Amino acid sequence: MARVQKLSGFPEWLPDGQVVQQLVEDTARRVFELHGFSGIETRAVEPLEQMLRKGEIDKEVYVLRRLQAEGEDPDAGLGLHFDLTVPFARYVLEHAGHLDFPFKRYQIQKVWRGERPQEGRFREFTQADIDVVGRDVLSFHHEVEMAVVMSALLAELPIPAAVIQVNNRKLAEGFYRGVGASDTAAVLRVIDKLDKVGAEVVLRLLVEEAGLTPEGAQRCLDLAQIRTPDSSFAAEVRALGVADELLDEGIDELAAVVDGVNARRPGAVVADLRIARGLDYYTGTVYETQLLGYESVGSIASGGRYDSLASDGRQTFPGVGISLGVTRLVSILLGRGLVEVSRPVPSAVLVAVVDEDARPASEQVAADLRSRGIACEVAPKADKFGKQIKYADRRGIPFVWFPDPAGDSVKDIRSGEQVPSDAASWAPPTEDRHPTVRPVSPDTSQEARP
Amino acid sequence: MARVQKLSGFPEWLPDGQVVQQLVEDTARRVFELHGFSGIETRAVEPLEQMLRKGEIDKEVYVLRRLQAEGEDPDAGLGLHFDLTVPFARYVLEHAGHLDFPFKRYQIQKVWRGERPQEGRFREFTQADIDVVGRDVLSFHHEVEMAVVMSALLAELPIPAAVIQVNNRKLAEGFYRGVGASDTAAVLRVIDKLDKVGAEVVLRLLVEEAGLTPEGAQRCLDLAQIRTPDSSFAAEVRALGVADELLDEGIDELAAVVDGVNARRPGAVVADLRIARGLDYYTGTVYETQLLGYESVGSIASGGRYDSLASDGRQTFPGVGISLGVTRLVSILLGRGLVEVSRPVPSAVLVAVVDEDARPASEQVAADLRSRGIACEVAPKADKFGKQIKYADRRGIPFVWFPDPAGDSVKDIRSGEQVPSDAASWAPPTEDRHPTVRPVSPDTSQEARP
Repeated sequence: MARVQKLSGFPEWLPDGQVVQQLVEDTARRVFELHGFSGIETRAVEPLEQMLRKGEIDKEVYVLRRLQAEGEDPDAGLGLHFDLTVPFARYVLEHAGHLDFPFKRYQIQKVWRGERPQEGRFREFTQADIDVVGRDVLSFHHEVEMAVVMSALLAELPIPAAVIQVNNRKLAEGFYRGVGASDTAAVLRVIDKLDKVGAEVVLRLLVEEAGLTPEGAQRCLDLAQIRTPDSSFAAEVRALGVADELLDEGIDELAAVVDGVNARRPGAVVADLRIARGLDYYTGTVYETQLLGYESVGSIASGGRYDSLASDGRQTFPGVGISLGVTRLVSILLGRGLVEVSRPVPSAVLVAVVDEDARPASEQVAADLRSRGIACEVAPKADKFGKQIKYADRRGIPFVWFPDPAGDSVKDIRSGEQVPSDAASWAPPTEDRHPTVRPVSPDTSQEARP
Repeated sequence: MARVQKLSGFPEWLPDGQVVQQLVEDTARRVFELHGFSGIETRAVEPLEQMLRKGEIDKEVYVLRRLQAEGEDPDAGLGLHFDLTVPFARYVLEHAGHLDFPFKRYQIQKVWRGERPQEGRFREFTQADIDVVGRDVLSFHHEVEMAVVMSALLAELPIPAAVIQVNNRKLAEGFYRGVGASDTAAVLRVIDKLDKVGAEVVLRLLVEEAGLTPEGAQRCLDLAQIRTPDSSFAAEVRALGVADELLDEGIDELAAVVDGVNARRPGAVVADLRIARGLDYYTGTVYETQLLGYESVGSIASGGRYDSLASDGRQTFPGVGISLGVTRLVSILLGRGLVEVSRPVPSAVLVAVVDEDARPASEQVAADLRSRGIACEVAPKADKFGKQIKYADRRGIPFVWFPDPAGDSVKDIRSGEQVPSDAASWAPPTEDRHPTVRPVSPDTSQEARP
């Protein structure tokens, strides 16, 4: 293994970066479980035919082939999943007889997309999803719940302020219909490009590709530029003078989500009528999330309501979900130097070794500390104490323990203070027990190590 | 998505099974961190050329292809990793400049092998690995450490008793050389089949394929049948009358591991001289682990010492590691009904909803409970209370909370006891806070649901 090849788009962290990734995943899991979501994992592969339904044919899916396959390959037609929603829909159909509905699940796993890597976009990345799925029906209040849970999670992370932008497919579709669009999906696809190509190009495309009149196109653009922190968007939409039943329904739903979420988490969401979401299986509320000051890397948490992603012909399973882009978020925190990790190792204590014959005594100290939940390691070599202290210092281990038949002692190598100690009772201060992640302002950040 | 296809070899658990899998992973992580191992994750893919070194050409690797790839595919030649050791070796080489040695890491991830599925063998499965890697040198005591840590982990899991079987490559190779073998790897490969094909076939193959004399073959078979709970194996090996320097070194090392581990964890390991391990990169101690009563499913934790898996030409990185087969273990626990899960949902409390207009009051109760770390959910529908209690009962949620302007109350739906309660102070008993996993004897087990 002489040559090592760095693979673009497949991020890997050093141990201190992994501390940050683990913190994000642990926090997600804790918040999801506090809200009653059960954890599941689905296999990494799905039949291609299922993944490529719903207009997803342009997804860059990785297809599998067995290296040793001869003749008919039973694994032909399998691909790595590109999100956690399609596998979850399949899981619900496969196991419906064993699940209780509405079924609330979270899922924290890697997904793969063969896309061109760029900041915030990877070929392999971790997502943390929650979804609620009902059998045949799903109450609207879950569309409020998704944003409340994601907001609670984001508030617990050591990250810049984030705001969830909410829109509603019924509102958009009804409006597009109301201005005379025959292909509302085409309008949506064009509007989705607004951030990238700008207003002028969008106006042109709405006429050329979506078949709108110039006036209709202008109104769709006006709609996309409405953004309010509360339900006042409704009056702005109505002022555009478009009438449609579905539009009215969408306005009511969006107002209920924005007001419902902000009542419980003030300022957590805004109504933003340019939010489109590329995937065409959404049918109601849609979510995207901006990390303030880092909008250019794209949404860090997205999702929406889908009425018919999963159906076995007899029954349908409507759902709503939202997904945190764990890798995208962690890559911003590490790449922009927004966090500081106290140490890359779990050990709070290095137990020194006096000489190799006395290693069992040091192992016993370590066992005693571990039995009380204190992470520690025994020095790998009975070097001079100065060298063992340097070993601890290089790893950021705050305490060095010196076994001594005349009485043990422990040294805080930051302050130099050394005190008598008993492995059966001593404990480090709470803040030193585990590695910690501290937010830092970008100005004072150190060079991030990817 | 009308038809759903079950994929053999890609196991998935229902939420209660996932509680078991999560417990195993959490326990592994906690024990590994207590022993000072840092967590890392490596990407799921590696260049094929690196994975297929070291005689691994017969591995059933899954190769990737981009569905939309045209012309030269930059991802051609990538495969899914089939273990976590080869990726770790590559990680060490790639990041050596940023790591401190000896470097102790754990890694809990999925791996993929395109093998024929059978009990205990999967195409996708999770492993939990620890390794210690040094730069140029690695002290022998880490070969004791691996078995101590794995034994500590196994002791914390709700599983049948397990015993780690240890052997030593130097011992085996020295012995084979001592009986005249010119290709010791060939002898090892034949001995590795002993459990599957039996003594007679092994004797024949040792002569026909490994070129031994019938007498030499018999001695190798005698060696493989030595198994002792302590270092008394040494006398039994010497009684076979084979002399070799490497053999002596191997005997000393194996005795040191068996005595060293058992001094700290009595009965944790046995010397078992038939343990070969298929992978040919091992150079010293090798480990396998039997789950007593379930030996037929194969080793649940395996590993060994390797001197030269990772090298960049200038420096080498010798290491030793051991890997817990998480999916194999969980599949035994679930498939044989060896554990009972208290409930499949995290919620300890269902907060009832009096009517839909009063939902915010129920949400407030839930928020208060969650702020004190109590997982709960709000009833999805303002049904009659009897129906809401049934909802909780179906999920195994032990408590139902009734908000009431005149004073809230909470009901233990198992006993029927209902008491006045305050969301700012009430807490469930500790044993009801989280789902629990209890070992059960196979006789009283329920039908397992995969």
